[in-house]
Amino acid sequence: MSTDTRTRMIEATARLLQHRGYHGTALSDILAASAAPRGSLYFHFPGGKDQLALEATRAAVEETTVYLEEALSAAPTPAQAVRSFVDSTAELMRLSDYTFGCPVAPMVLDAPADLRELDELCRRTFERWIEMLRISFATAGIPAQIASSLALLVVAAIEGALLIARASRDCAPIATIAAELETLIGSALPRGRRRKPRRTAGR
Amino acid sequence: MSTDTRTRMIEATARLLQHRGYHGTALSDILAASAAPRGSLYFHFPGGKDQLALEATRAAVEETTVYLEEALSAAPTPAQAVRSFVDSTAELMRLSDYTFGCPVAPMVLDAPADLRELDELCRRTFERWIEMLRISFATAGIPAQIASSLALLVVAAIEGALLIARASRDCAPIATIAAELETLIGSALPRGRRRKPRRTAGR
Repeated sequence: MSTDTRTRMIEATARLLQHRGYHGTALSDILAASAAPRGSLYFHFPGGKDQLALEATRAAVEETTVYLEEALSAAPTPAQAVRSFVDSTAELMRLSDYTFGCPVAPMVLDAPADLRELDELCRRTFERWIEMLRISFATAGIPAQIASSLALLVVAAIEGALLIARASRDCAPIATIAAELETLIGSALPRGRRRKPRRTAGR
Repeated sequence: MSTDTRTRMIEATARLLQHRGYHGTALSDILAASAAPRGSLYFHFPGGKDQLALEATRAAVEETTVYLEEALSAAPTPAQAVRSFVDSTAELMRLSDYTFGCPVAPMVLDAPADLRELDELCRRTFERWIEMLRISFATAGIPAQIASSLALLVVAAIEGALLIARASRDCAPIATIAAELETLIGSALPRGRRRKPRRTAGR
């Protein structure tokens, strides 16, 4: 039971942080959202809100990274993998009524400057996602220099797409950007390795 | 003098919102940063923090929009305009020690859901920037359908670039993305209208 409480608190914190940021998430909100007794907070998280924010962000980052890994290994081309990853992210955003998005973005923009571990996690997460895409692009035959800058552009465009979609409460911008990125990656591939893009969304 | 106090308070609020978000910005921080007496707050802003946040975001958005407009009208091609706009934004981020970025992004991610006017301002700002780029691309001869989705991709990529640069405290990702976007826009132009990109940054 106590492990369940801990997990529930981490999940609730992750959702609240994505919805309202670090400063907008009060400990009382976390306790209410996870139906946890007040005493459980410092029992499970002696470091308080800062420890919770770090663990919740880490858990949400892992989940997103697994989605991306799965998309990259399941799709026949990296272009289709990115399309599929972005489409399923859009679906999650829609299901959350535009309250979820990237777990890193809100922490970059509003977490206190002295939370070094959280800062470090955010920095390394972007590096990791960019590196995963770079390897996938390079493995598919995209020349090294192009693979590297294209991977960065793809991560940046997805981050921006999530932001614009959330501001407009509409996933259409994400769909447009997903299609643009698919085309862009596809056209960076050597001719023989391009495949016709699927037009349907998928996990 | 009182007008100066009002302006100082708006400027201080804009900086604080970009640095720490809505919830991370306390009224006491705004008063301290603008060297304003407590009484001046409700005198100038009867709507309190919400009114200040709205006016500060509106002012910062106007400033950014003017920068973009100037870049678009000054550069010989929209590709060079985007490059120049992104380069100067990177310079501002570096000068602020990675505390400033887009004035809209933090408000999208952490402002309270009941601030309808602020929500509306964020939504319309993205639409406005995308529309400015779309018109510039279309005027330069990029086909309508491409101009529209390319404008969206450019705004999204710039937003993501600012986020990644801030997380890594390094403007190199912005420079890479600026170069990618310049190439992308340049290659969407009809052949006769492409010009050799300048390699230097400029306002």
